[in-house]
Amino acid sequence: MKTQQNTGANAVNGADELKEQPTQLEKMRHSLAHLLAAAVLELHPDTLLTIGPAVDNGFYYDFQFSTPISDKDLLKIEKTMKKILPHWKSFEHKEITADEARDIFKNNPYKLELVEEIAGKKTADGANEPITLYTVGNVGHAFTDLCRGGHVENPSQDIDIGAFKLDRVAGAYWRGDEKNKMLTRIYGLAFATPAEFEEYFKMREESEKRDHRKIGKEMSIFTFDDDVGPGLPLWLPNGAAIIEELENLAKETEFEAGYVRVRTPHIAKESMYIKSGHLPYYEDGMYPPMGYEGTKYYLRAMNCPHHHKVFAAEQRSYKDLPLRLAEYGTVYRHEKSGELFGLMRVRMLEMNDAHIYCTEEQFADEFRSVNEMYLKYFKIFGIEKYIMRFSTHDPKYLGQKYLDDPESWKKTEDMVRKVLVESKIPFVEVANEAAFYGPKIDVQVWSAIGREFTLATNQVDFGVPKRFDLVYTNKEGRQETPLCIHRAPLGTHERFIGFLIEHYAGEFPLWLSPVQIQVLPIGENHVEFAKKIYKELRKNKIRAEIDDSNDGLGKKVRAAKVGKVPYWLVIGDKEIEAGKVTLESRTDGNLGQISEEELIAKLVAEISEKK
Amino acid sequence: MKTQQNTGANAVNGADELKEQPTQLEKMRHSLAHLLAAAVLELHPDTLLTIGPAVDNGFYYDFQFSTPISDKDLLKIEKTMKKILPHWKSFEHKEITADEARDIFKNNPYKLELVEEIAGKKTADGANEPITLYTVGNVGHAFTDLCRGGHVENPSQDIDIGAFKLDRVAGAYWRGDEKNKMLTRIYGLAFATPAEFEEYFKMREESEKRDHRKIGKEMSIFTFDDDVGPGLPLWLPNGAAIIEELENLAKETEFEAGYVRVRTPHIAKESMYIKSGHLPYYEDGMYPPMGYEGTKYYLRAMNCPHHHKVFAAEQRSYKDLPLRLAEYGTVYRHEKSGELFGLMRVRMLEMNDAHIYCTEEQFADEFRSVNEMYLKYFKIFGIEKYIMRFSTHDPKYLGQKYLDDPESWKKTEDMVRKVLVESKIPFVEVANEAAFYGPKIDVQVWSAIGREFTLATNQVDFGVPKRFDLVYTNKEGRQETPLCIHRAPLGTHERFIGFLIEHYAGEFPLWLSPVQIQVLPIGENHVEFAKKIYKELRKNKIRAEIDDSNDGLGKKVRAAKVGKVPYWLVIGDKEIEAGKVTLESRTDGNLGQISEEELIAKLVAEISEKK
Repeated sequence: MKTQQNTGANAVNGADELKEQPTQLEKMRHSLAHLLAAAVLELHPDTLLTIGPAVDNGFYYDFQFSTPISDKDLLKIEKTMKKILPHWKSFEHKEITADEARDIFKNNPYKLELVEEIAGKKTADGANEPITLYTVGNVGHAFTDLCRGGHVENPSQDIDIGAFKLDRVAGAYWRGDEKNKMLTRIYGLAFATPAEFEEYFKMREESEKRDHRKIGKEMSIFTFDDDVGPGLPLWLPNGAAIIEELENLAKETEFEAGYVRVRTPHIAKESMYIKSGHLPYYEDGMYPPMGYEGTKYYLRAMNCPHHHKVFAAEQRSYKDLPLRLAEYGTVYRHEKSGELFGLMRVRMLEMNDAHIYCTEEQFADEFRSVNEMYLKYFKIFGIEKYIMRFSTHDPKYLGQKYLDDPESWKKTEDMVRKVLVESKIPFVEVANEAAFYGPKIDVQVWSAIGREFTLATNQVDFGVPKRFDLVYTNKEGRQETPLCIHRAPLGTHERFIGFLIEHYAGEFPLWLSPVQIQVLPIGENHVEFAKKIYKELRKNKIRAEIDDSNDGLGKKVRAAKVGKVPYWLVIGDKEIEAGKVTLESRTDGNLGQISEEELIAKLVAEISEKK
Repeated sequence: MKTQQNTGANAVNGADELKEQPTQLEKMRHSLAHLLAAAVLELHPDTLLTIGPAVDNGFYYDFQFSTPISDKDLLKIEKTMKKILPHWKSFEHKEITADEARDIFKNNPYKLELVEEIAGKKTADGANEPITLYTVGNVGHAFTDLCRGGHVENPSQDIDIGAFKLDRVAGAYWRGDEKNKMLTRIYGLAFATPAEFEEYFKMREESEKRDHRKIGKEMSIFTFDDDVGPGLPLWLPNGAAIIEELENLAKETEFEAGYVRVRTPHIAKESMYIKSGHLPYYEDGMYPPMGYEGTKYYLRAMNCPHHHKVFAAEQRSYKDLPLRLAEYGTVYRHEKSGELFGLMRVRMLEMNDAHIYCTEEQFADEFRSVNEMYLKYFKIFGIEKYIMRFSTHDPKYLGQKYLDDPESWKKTEDMVRKVLVESKIPFVEVANEAAFYGPKIDVQVWSAIGREFTLATNQVDFGVPKRFDLVYTNKEGRQETPLCIHRAPLGTHERFIGFLIEHYAGEFPLWLSPVQIQVLPIGENHVEFAKKIYKELRKNKIRAEIDDSNDGLGKKVRAAKVGKVPYWLVIGDKEIEAGKVTLESRTDGNLGQISEEELIAKLVAEISEKK
């Protein structure tokens, strides 16, 4: 099993509590949330305060305003924050009783709810959880809030006035629950230094320019349709061309690495998912069932059970192992409408999936080969920064969160760790984040502009093969259960192409470009020659297009550039006379005249080298 | 829309009536049904007779026996038939009144039901439908049955005793309705001459040997699994290899023919299928819906609506036409369990689909190109016998069975007919079998052993594009609705591979063979050299396998033959000494020693030529 839609480490943390030991940056961000609340109160005194945590790129505060505000009001609030900041020299805190708190916040139902919640809690040593007020600022500018703490010592010194900025206004349900009242959330950005702030801001601007939804539309890569449904992308011809190339790459790479392919149905009976444990544990992530001839059929959310059935379909001996079953499998996930996001979070996914069934002795080699496949892909796609996040179990939760098989945990975790260390791939080890049935590795990559993506997940599985009664006959003639490695180095088409669009800003390398070369005859009497070249290119499996419209050359070239086409050919009198074409490149400009044979040889070589 | 699962012209005709003008062969078969009934009555006098029509390869008769019979009883019945036949010189018929009939058949509820049915009918000129009895045979062997006629003049002369045979016993509901009583059906085979009978019998024996379910299992091509569900094949690696080759062929052929590919979701909202007309008209053929966020989602039964949405996703001008959208699209059909049959009738299909959107002026060229694509494929697969069944509308049913647009019907039917005539493709024209929205062509092909298959359907569609508001801007700047051609020359993977298994008897040509060459080292000290060759073959994308087990060479060769592998290499001392390998072929035996380079060149050429 692989989750392809992790929100990753950058997810906005909606909780109202800071982590136990906040970093200096988190303290700064949380202090800024107080400052934001103080500024809002100064400008809009009848506003009700609620909560204001630090988040990954700054902070937010949720307010109940008496009259609505919008992004336009942010500048004024920000100015007020900057006016107040120099007066904030320290945070003073005071413990109060629940009754005192109830009295202080009697007009604020949100704070009252929080007070009651804290009043009902005990600390680890059995004492009552303290209720604390934090006050900051001079008399006149003093600001007090119900808070657990986690601030900088001296805001006026510890916060750089050039390192934060209010960002935007959004609606947010009180405590994230859509049954509650909708509040107004103000987001702020904040970093340790103005330089870091600038860097983030530039990255964000760049990533907005590279937004896969924007470029996806401009380049006709994908679309959505109301009658088809949200979260269900339709890949237009340009998108399908990219998909075909990725699949070809995966198929060639996997053939070379000794994988065999299978094709399995996208649906199965309830009994299959009870066996796999998806029902009831993953039911929320699946589409509702289709009742059919007295049984229920489900769209699959993962490919593994089907692959296990292929393994089980024939008698297996140790000679058949490792058996590497690969499929670009389609899976369906029940994601809430509100959580859908372009190609990044969708409801139907095509996954570069494979399951490797092997013996324990074979495990290290197999796992190493999977990692090498990642590295090969990283090189092809110019992914220079990556890390493997190695998630292990926590013995405390054996039998609950984790399969109660301490020996297998130790063995598989040791094996994975050994391969990671030996292969010198950068990794971090994180306890208590494994899957139910074995350790896993999440692969994080960074795009060309430094944004982090969770690309894929590898898992070691010593549990589910047993549930499916998968066995092979070992050398001694006894039956054994194989280990299973779940892997998907190219993730899903949806997420990976979403990533690539940002990574390349739509300027795909030649081999991946939907249109690889545009043939541009200047005038009508150049069309015939242009068509001849065009046909020759297509015969060589090059995705050439021809623009034989009446537009002028300038317009034709602009269209090629807008379409981010890597090459175009200009064909006019001069070219026909020379029996050659003028080749121009998206990156290198005019490359001069070239013969048809040279052109094709150049393109074919560049495509096959995946440069 | 395309129906890939037609039962085709060979379907058993369950109707109890002969066609209006029976052929001599049909008359003979129907007369044999009478003879069968007479023989059964002679042996089992208390049997109730029901109906006995001619069918495609013979005849049957449905009986209610007082004690069950089985296939073992057939020989005796057949002997009795052959004993009676010489006495049957002519059929005499007699019209009787309904009351007379009620009296004669008072002990046979089945015949009574038929009598009442006939009594309630009128002929075309308003008269009562006559009730007729047919009597045949001498006194003593005389046999009388309620019947409409359609017999040979003199059975003893017109039926060759060597041209028929009882075939098998089966259960059958009275009038095919599972709510009725189960009767015993006896099938007979009958042909005009003993020679034709022999030919049919041989073909049938051969097709049993070539049964795609049998070979599919022996060659590990596909499997079914109870937890996945009936009608949902899992393609094992050998099957997936064939699929990949077919898809590559389709993709290359379509690229060359100017198609572009798309990828679209397998599900859509209810609103999509209301728009397309699948709901409610095709609802029975679809899986039940999944209720989801207040709407219903359906698994698609056809790809066309999704492709229409791709067309609609962008502004289209006449310059964009023809637009040929291709996808190996997955569709799901709700087939009853009882109707499932191996790969021939399944519940999930992958279809070699495409939709061509074009102007009327472009239609003939596009349609011709589609036909040429068929011919190209027929040549590749050695399909020598084929016919196109051209189904037109019937003006009588305009507005009911057919879209009420007489002008478009005339125009599109004329266009199709013209292309068919000009291209000299064998075709038959059948009135009143068109689709709702346009004429269609069913492509029938015959396998190597002469069995007929419905491969695919092409349709012209002048209706649905309008329902989807599909438009393009024509040269004059006005909006027009394109025509749409639905086509799928390779049908579905399921049905086509089922056909190919029979066609080739599992002996796929090299390019399609799951395992293309088996490398067989004779002893342990030949393994290293064998592995080197094996690796070189794989590097050249040849599906090579190596058998480095301890088995003797004889056993290894037998395994290769059983697996229907086209080539194998023998590697022993002699070969290592010569630095060559011994190549053997499934069809041509030992081909002698050959160098690695020659071997690879030979295989690569043969694969690319698809010989």
